Amino acid sequence: MLAAVIHGARDVRAEDRPDPLLRTDDDAVLRVVAACVCGSDLWPYRGVTATQEPHPIGHELVGVVEQLGANVTSAQVGDLVIVPFSLSCGTCQSCRAGFPAACDQVTFFGSTDRQGHPVDGAQGERVRIPLAQHSLFPVGLSEAVVEERGLVPHLLALADVMSTGLHAATSANVKPDDVVAVVGDGAVGLSAVIAADLLGAQRIIAMSRHEDRAALARRFGATDVVAERGQDAPDAIRALLGGDLADVALECVGTAESMAQAMSVVRGGGRVGFVGVPNGGAQLPIRTVFGRNLTVGGGMASARRYMEELLPDVLDGTITPGDVFDLTLPLSEIAQAYAAMDERRAIKVLVRP
Amino acid sequence: MLAAVIHGARDVRAEDRPDPLLRTDDDAVLRVVAACVCGSDLWPYRGVTATQEPHPIGHELVGVVEQLGANVTSAQVGDLVIVPFSLSCGTCQSCRAGFPAACDQVTFFGSTDRQGHPVDGAQGERVRIPLAQHSLFPVGLSEAVVEERGLVPHLLALADVMSTGLHAATSANVKPDDVVAVVGDGAVGLSAVIAADLLGAQRIIAMSRHEDRAALARRFGATDVVAERGQDAPDAIRALLGGDLADVALECVGTAESMAQAMSVVRGGGRVGFVGVPNGGAQLPIRTVFGRNLTVGGGMASARRYMEELLPDVLDGTITPGDVFDLTLPLSEIAQAYAAMDERRAIKVLVRP
Repeated sequence: MLAAVIHGARDVRAEDRPDPLLRTDDDAVLRVVAACVCGSDLWPYRGVTATQEPHPIGHELVGVVEQLGANVTSAQVGDLVIVPFSLSCGTCQSCRAGFPAACDQVTFFGSTDRQGHPVDGAQGERVRIPLAQHSLFPVGLSEAVVEERGLVPHLLALADVMSTGLHAATSANVKPDDVVAVVGDGAVGLSAVIAADLLGAQRIIAMSRHEDRAALARRFGATDVVAERGQDAPDAIRALLGGDLADVALECVGTAESMAQAMSVVRGGGRVGFVGVPNGGAQLPIRTVFGRNLTVGGGMASARRYMEELLPDVLDGTITPGDVFDLTLPLSEIAQAYAAMDERRAIKVLVRP
Repeated sequence: MLAAVIHGARDVRAEDRPDPLLRTDDDAVLRVVAACVCGSDLWPYRGVTATQEPHPIGHELVGVVEQLGANVTSAQVGDLVIVPFSLSCGTCQSCRAGFPAACDQVTFFGSTDRQGHPVDGAQGERVRIPLAQHSLFPVGLSEAVVEERGLVPHLLALADVMSTGLHAATSANVKPDDVVAVVGDGAVGLSAVIAADLLGAQRIIAMSRHEDRAALARRFGATDVVAERGQDAPDAIRALLGGDLADVALECVGTAESMAQAMSVVRGGGRVGFVGVPNGGAQLPIRTVFGRNLTVGGGMASARRYMEELLPDVLDGTITPGDVFDLTLPLSEIAQAYAAMDERRAIKVLVRP
């Protein structure tokens, strides 16, 4: 089968790989209907995190079940399913508490499972899914219906970015009457705008200096756009809000600068939801958090839980998170998909095997 | 008047100081009925934080209003009032949002006010209170009644430790059914036990290795006591909870060790309320917070707000936070008060001018 393999900085190739097989009774094998490239895939692509040895990549997918291990009863062969970017057992304390991203057995695509077997990347024609009982999320519609209704991009967004945006907003406990500033105008930031709107925020300030992204943010529910950065950003927000700062900031980038930006635009006692994978020296400065009475929460989204909450909104058209995909390429052109996102020619690229 | 002055490590003296006067129309002058020594006073006392030059010290008091500036209408001469450990304007965005500890004009005892005038310490016979309109909290009972009913210690506890304990629990969003672990068995930790109980936690684990403090924690509502520390602590908690960890940890010390301890005893997706003034390299490790999906909040307690919530519970005897005072000394023996706390001969010392 064809699958994406990262070899090093700016070197992702579509290669022929062995077809996946069931390895345990807890596995499933899926045929991938659609996958995509994540902002976090750009860290190794850009060499910010090192790639020690070539490995399959990609962690977002919508697929159809082809094979099921004997213990997997949560889906049937032929079901269209979404798979969250982290695989989880569903039974440990963290899973039971609603945080499968912190599962005791958490397993990632392109890595190895708890038995030591390699796990495929999602950017491929087929994938083996460990911990399938809890990790498969059947949509309840056939592949044909989903394709006909154009739902694939919106369902795919639930695998990571839209769930991650909702995790930012949920972790920051966004409430009606809140003024929410969103730091980052990538797919996660744009999804966080949708999430803040879903949770009823009275005002949503998208911090963006790209006109196309700002326009999409407005379509998703942003009431204001602030292009200023650094020290100018809180001043711009004070100008918008009659001297006040935001109640909540959603940090959707993961750098030291974006975290500092998020903390700078909220009032004392404000809340910061952070979901950008920490890179480039990002910190939670304890004296700022302490002295300004901030509450900080987030991390890897428990997409398995959020996709359940979000599916009805996708199916009835309340939200269209798949609008973040502004380019679709075949899997054979995976290198171009990465380049387009790296060069900001695309917000997010959908990949079809 | 007599007042405590810190000169350096292990050198606090009761000295003769000028009687305070009103400096602005926003001030009040109080006669101190009772003050006390705080765990955070021990940082400069122990030399962990340097004392650059001698200054008055102490930030917790119950007092009687003697003089009022022309703008102060929130209390009357003769009123018995509690004063929170941080003074605040009551009108800026942070104050309006319920976080006066993050007030734009926040002012501390033993420091200088926004006009540059020196501010007395609370461990003295009299104090000038800047920002008095919002900072004075009249109890609604006379000094005589409060003394007769033995309420002074309980009211004094609202000035800092009890409010700080409630801030830890509130910041961690303690809910019924939560299992709460309290890290630190000083007066704040013990107050956090009371707070977790008030908020309905189903199980409260006091982490203490001092029998007298553990006994008080149990009286305050702790259901369990764990003496283990470090790597043994999560194991001990798992043994108590059938393999699970706590939902919430309340960090009431402020060191790197206590923060690591707090994070080690909660499940994925757990919440950490932290109110120990950060010292000794305390950090919020971003990868732990991110990877384990923790939510972290706290900081300086907005005592002005919490004392309003807590006063009815003190007046009807629901809570007796003043039981943390296990020694009372006259102001003239302030040096002994510090030594008793430093040497852990006392949990918290009440000081009478």
